Amino acid sequence: MNGPFSVRRTVTWGDCDPAGIIYTPRVLDHAVAAVEVWYREVLQAPWFDLNWRRHMGAPFVRAECDFIRAPACDDEILVEVRVNRIGRSSATYVVVGTDDEGRHYFRATLVACFIARPDFRSAPIPDDIRQRMTAYQAACGDAPED
Amino acid sequence: MNGPFSVRRTVTWGDCDPAGIIYTPRVLDHAVAAVEVWYREVLQAPWFDLNWRRHMGAPFVRAECDFIRAPACDDEILVEVRVNRIGRSSATYVVVGTDDEGRHYFRATLVACFIARPDFRSAPIPDDIRQRMTAYQAACGDAPED
Amino acid sequence: MNGPFSVRRTVTWGDCDPAGIIYTPRVLDHAVAAVEVWYREVLQAPWFDLNWRRHMGAPFVRAECDFIRAPACDDEILVEVRVNRIGRSSATYVVVGTDDEGRHYFRATLVACFIARPDFRSAPIPDDIRQRMTAYQAACGDAPED
Amino acid sequence: MNGPFSVRRTVTWGDCDPAGIIYTPRVLDHAVAAVEVWYREVLQAPWFDLNWRRHMGAPFVRAECDFIRAPACDDEILVEVRVNRIGRSSATYVVVGTDDEGRHYFRATLVACFIARPDFRSAPIPDDIRQRMTAYQAACGDAPED
Repeated sequence: MNGPFSVRRTVTWGDCDPAGIIYTPRVLDHAVAAVEVWYREVLQAPWFDLNWRRHMGAPFVRAECDFIRAPACDDEILVEVRVNRIGRSSATYVVVGTDDEGRHYFRATLVACFIARPDFRSAPIPDDIRQRMTAYQAACGDAPED
Repeated sequence: MNGPFSVRRTVTWGDCDPAGIIYTPRVLDHAVAAVEVWYREVLQAPWFDLNWRRHMGAPFVRAECDFIRAPACDDEILVEVRVNRIGRSSATYVVVGTDDEGRHYFRATLVACFIARPDFRSAPIPDDIRQRMTAYQAACGDAPED
Repeated sequence: MNGPFSVRRTVTWGDCDPAGIIYTPRVLDHAVAAVEVWYREVLQAPWFDLNWRRHMGAPFVRAECDFIRAPACDDEILVEVRVNRIGRSSATYVVVGTDDEGRHYFRATLVACFIARPDFRSAPIPDDIRQRMTAYQAACGDAPED
Repeated sequence: MNGPFSVRRTVTWGDCDPAGIIYTPRVLDHAVAAVEVWYREVLQAPWFDLNWRRHMGAPFVRAECDFIRAPACDDEILVEVRVNRIGRSSATYVVVGTDDEGRHYFRATLVACFIARPDFRSAPIPDDIRQRMTAYQAACGDAPED
């Protein structure tokens, strides 16, 4: 792999509000959707499989986001996902959205906590997921600090 | 009960698109959300309970909607739910959204089919739900035809 | 062009409800989002441009949708857009979602009415858009009837 | 006024994901929607009016949220809005969601920056809005620190 995993997303008419720019909560939708694809493709742990087959989950317990520049309708966003910290049962992701010139639209930090269902107690990150996560972090390097 | 069940909903900034009016698919969100409240309060059958406790469901198999006048941001919509037809395993709802003068924003017809999980085979409407549905229909009368 | 325009969309975790299948109103989101891409790429008339530069719009005035089979989380949908009828100021689109074996997830019919802003009066379809729409319809053939 | 402004919101079936709990980004939707109502009712500055009539805006430039306990379908959330800091052109809101026993579902901090359109330059908070904001902060007290 060369560099961090990314997905390209287009801001839709329905994402935007009457100001003509993306409605703020939709930014988090785009960030979380990129992380979802990364779980499926890089960690090989689709959320549906994690929840309904493994009886686990990885809900977010904290999110921070700087909305640096608001994309408008039809703008393309390159959304990159990096791993910043891997704990026993939690992991921290940094998700950055940029335009084609590399200018930042947003920078989000998302903390996920792995849990066992049905009682949502925290649980260790499963070994196969941890191995892929660690390998990915090593391949990408940490997300740059602000 | 006097007249049909209704909920009052306000069109939010996030519901609206850059034209300043509600984004079309959000109309269906408002209609379906009103039906959800009606299941909970009138049929006493919340969807979560129906799915996770009774191992059933009532997915919609067909929707029609006329978008008669688009509400704008901050507009209030009175959303009324009526039952038009009760079959063995399916039911047809008519959901009408109006402003305070009674002018129509939208008129939707939604057909739900009761199913048994996990294989989603069609199943008879449970007796307790059918009784409340029938009583409701009798109390309101049919939805007026167009 | 060979055959109708299509986009490929993946059903996300956030699209799905506690039954594990797509939440019904999200189907309309996927259908409308495909039509939005088709306006941009085939008609060369992005909605934002149509609204904010040309001071027009093409809101939907009617939608019908059969939800034939509910896609689940991670399912891919091929969404095809066809033109069924072109009037003076309105056009009818048929949007079909299928899986990779060609089995139908949904079939929607959407009627758009072109309008002039700010008063939302109906307006003739602009010539450049009409020409591309007509050429597209001729290239694809009508959408098949049910 | 007695105590902070709050709105009561019910978590819908469509808010929830296949884990049966609220889909994380929807928490931000609920928080922002509560702030929207607060602008309309307490500041007397509906966002639509602020944008389309005053040619201003108050986009969020930063959000932080701790997801303390995930509400499930049909749960009611009491969402309180407080003002923590009022600057020249920016303001910080603390939005807390609790259940009926006062237990926290989430705690969000949202920073808004007032801007002038169309170029989105930062602009001073208009006097009438500032006065109501200041009076509100004085009446409620600061939001408690974590």
